[in-house]
Amino acid sequence: MLARPQETLQSGEAMSNPIPADLQATLDPQRKSWIDSANDAACGFPIQNLPFGVFSTAGNANARVGVAIGDSVVDLAVLHEAGMLRLPAGSAAAQDVFARPALNDFIALGRDAWRSVRVQLSSLLARETATLREDAGLRQRAFVKLADAKLHLPVEIPGYTDFYSSKEHATNVGSMFRDPKNALLPNWSEMPIGYNGRASSVVVSGTPVRRPNGQLKLPDQERPVFGACRKLDIELETGFIVGRGNALGEPIACEQAEEHIFGMVLLNDWSARDIQQWEYVPLGPFNAKTFGTTISPWVVTLDALEPFRVAQPAQEPQPLEYLRHAGNHAFDIALEVLLRPEGASEATTIARTNFRHMYWTMAQQLAHHTVAGCNTRVGDLMGSGTISGPTPDSFGSLLELTWNAKNPLELKSGGTRGFIEDGDELTLAGWCQGEGYRVGFGTCVGTILPALK
Amino acid sequence: MLARPQETLQSGEAMSNPIPADLQATLDPQRKSWIDSANDAACGFPIQNLPFGVFSTAGNANARVGVAIGDSVVDLAVLHEAGMLRLPAGSAAAQDVFARPALNDFIALGRDAWRSVRVQLSSLLARETATLREDAGLRQRAFVKLADAKLHLPVEIPGYTDFYSSKEHATNVGSMFRDPKNALLPNWSEMPIGYNGRASSVVVSGTPVRRPNGQLKLPDQERPVFGACRKLDIELETGFIVGRGNALGEPIACEQAEEHIFGMVLLNDWSARDIQQWEYVPLGPFNAKTFGTTISPWVVTLDALEPFRVAQPAQEPQPLEYLRHAGNHAFDIALEVLLRPEGASEATTIARTNFRHMYWTMAQQLAHHTVAGCNTRVGDLMGSGTISGPTPDSFGSLLELTWNAKNPLELKSGGTRGFIEDGDELTLAGWCQGEGYRVGFGTCVGTILPALK
Repeated sequence: MLARPQETLQSGEAMSNPIPADLQATLDPQRKSWIDSANDAACGFPIQNLPFGVFSTAGNANARVGVAIGDSVVDLAVLHEAGMLRLPAGSAAAQDVFARPALNDFIALGRDAWRSVRVQLSSLLARETATLREDAGLRQRAFVKLADAKLHLPVEIPGYTDFYSSKEHATNVGSMFRDPKNALLPNWSEMPIGYNGRASSVVVSGTPVRRPNGQLKLPDQERPVFGACRKLDIELETGFIVGRGNALGEPIACEQAEEHIFGMVLLNDWSARDIQQWEYVPLGPFNAKTFGTTISPWVVTLDALEPFRVAQPAQEPQPLEYLRHAGNHAFDIALEVLLRPEGASEATTIARTNFRHMYWTMAQQLAHHTVAGCNTRVGDLMGSGTISGPTPDSFGSLLELTWNAKNPLELKSGGTRGFIEDGDELTLAGWCQGEGYRVGFGTCVGTILPALK
Repeated sequence: MLARPQETLQSGEAMSNPIPADLQATLDPQRKSWIDSANDAACGFPIQNLPFGVFSTAGNANARVGVAIGDSVVDLAVLHEAGMLRLPAGSAAAQDVFARPALNDFIALGRDAWRSVRVQLSSLLARETATLREDAGLRQRAFVKLADAKLHLPVEIPGYTDFYSSKEHATNVGSMFRDPKNALLPNWSEMPIGYNGRASSVVVSGTPVRRPNGQLKLPDQERPVFGACRKLDIELETGFIVGRGNALGEPIACEQAEEHIFGMVLLNDWSARDIQQWEYVPLGPFNAKTFGTTISPWVVTLDALEPFRVAQPAQEPQPLEYLRHAGNHAFDIALEVLLRPEGASEATTIARTNFRHMYWTMAQQLAHHTVAGCNTRVGDLMGSGTISGPTPDSFGSLLELTWNAKNPLELKSGGTRGFIEDGDELTLAGWCQGEGYRVGFGTCVGTILPALK
């Protein structure tokens, strides 16, 4: 599972837009920080990561932009006010972008600004740089322990789209609910199938999620009944955040699509399978999904993921021209799902997989999303679709892991699970394994509350 | 087609929340305005209507809130600044809600504020009130001719949902593409089927719409081809604007749902039928719809529609309890669709129908949307779904009117149409016919540009 940064960077060099040298330096596996906790090989927030988020504290309830480093958050509003972070000239109107409760205004400054801030932060936090390290007063004001930070939804999400881009997931679902011999529908191999999700109910990790009520069609009854979902499930996904939008009627070309992506999060697309099965024909899932979608609080930038770029799976048939792109567009991101029943001291890892298995790339998703003219906006969230790997322990949903509850999972803390029970805590985790460091996504956690009576 | 205000108001009296007397007075069919053009029986903006919108002018490019009256727009920002419109106490932070480029902040003040402003405006504009009529200076500043106003999208739309609530439409589509003997799917009669639409591409009437490109699956070819949509269509719909949201996990009861609705617009859900047919299984329409949705610029409040409340069609089977509401929840809104080819002097009316035919009510749609816990927000747009009546000339899409181009429509200006051609101008119009006056929705217009090459 070790990434091979040299090899993948070489393939990156063949791209039309090579990585600038100062940005390349932020990816150096040898770079260390003067914040010791960031240098622990098991820490997900080393100096190579620098993910962006929004936080507040007991002492300062104003939500503001921060970057995770080691066991801490660095407050960019404080650094900027102290003159330690410069924004590109011409963005005078945006000089307080870090003192805001969402990343959108910072992201809207554009890729040069994201990269400039990354380069400046990497330098300020590097072991050999004294500026901030030796300024005890500023350090005191600019750093907060992660344990003391309240993390907020990192972006205001104007639009949420969810794709369906894992071949293994689509095949599993098709086998279970349609025809095992023709599990993949004919359109699946031709385009990254997606649908519009509900942006209002996207919540940040840690927000409890209430089991939904809805219409359930029981096999022995003529009409549906109303009641609490009996087949509550997760979907292990990642999501990307749009960093540069496009105007209505002006599609994004596949080759340029990654330039429109700010970064990635973990995403749990909570799903009520029984509600879904009754409602989804012909217009797709609705109440089965709109009761909540959880994302992780830290946005890992596409720049930080560059060393983990790998080839996507071969695509056969070759996609239509608007979906073609040269080079490598998958990323080697290890993913796992943990389930901990209420009151249990131990969680069970119920799935392990990798984002690199995804058939359709994020670039292809964005190109397809806009090809008919649809506009996207800064902060739009695009879910990958459930990420299932090739083996039964790598499936990204309980539906697949238990094959619709036919093969319940054994939990370490005792008991079994077909689907999620009240009080269960579900955690998604993800990281890229570098040589001697990990670029982590943190976790994406949600605990299920009982349905309303 | 004449409404019977007396009869329907009587049924309204039986409701748990009777209309306050001052609001009732604004609905008096006898009330006239000192703005003469508003008293013309054919004018859609009489003093009984008072729809809200957002406009700017050549002399003042700042978009701001206005109300249509006769051939004019009254500038609420000017009236408010002049002290002629009071907002409810306690909304000090919102004292400039009319000087903003969207209605959201005004709507967020709540129903008491909407009603108070309606009552004040109705009084100020009534023939017998001299205050504004005799203040020549203020009149000069506060009124703009509709012909001189640029109309903007009236609300910022956080979320857009589209329903599928006309039985006739669902039956027609099911007959064409599935099984004529079982045209209605079993879930259709149990719930207002809906799906999440794309909010970013909702545009105001008058915005040109570009024909989308996409994947087309031709019957004689193994694989899809990429190209311009060949079956471009309209969907005649109305939409309602959420006036009061609900928190995540806290459903809106059907009996209270209308209190959450600010008002209604006309909505054209442009649809690429060929793209739709290839992409929509299993997750619903996506690129077939996301390239553009047009709404009319004036939001007609639910209060203004009160005299046109009528009984909805009988629902069989009786809906589950969470979808039940006593009283009348349909509205008698006459609707029509006109098509004018590029350069033609004359438009052809291609469909005439009425909103009262809709099987599921707006209240039921909102109750269903939130029953699993989904939150809604001020400004959310909820489309009715295509409104088709019982007769072939009352269908709300070309797909149905021409039965998938098998029976092309004859145009008055010459030629025929199976689907929409480049340069065609499509207009939706709607109004409620009172005794001696019309509560109009204005028009919802779009002209089709050729696809990108």
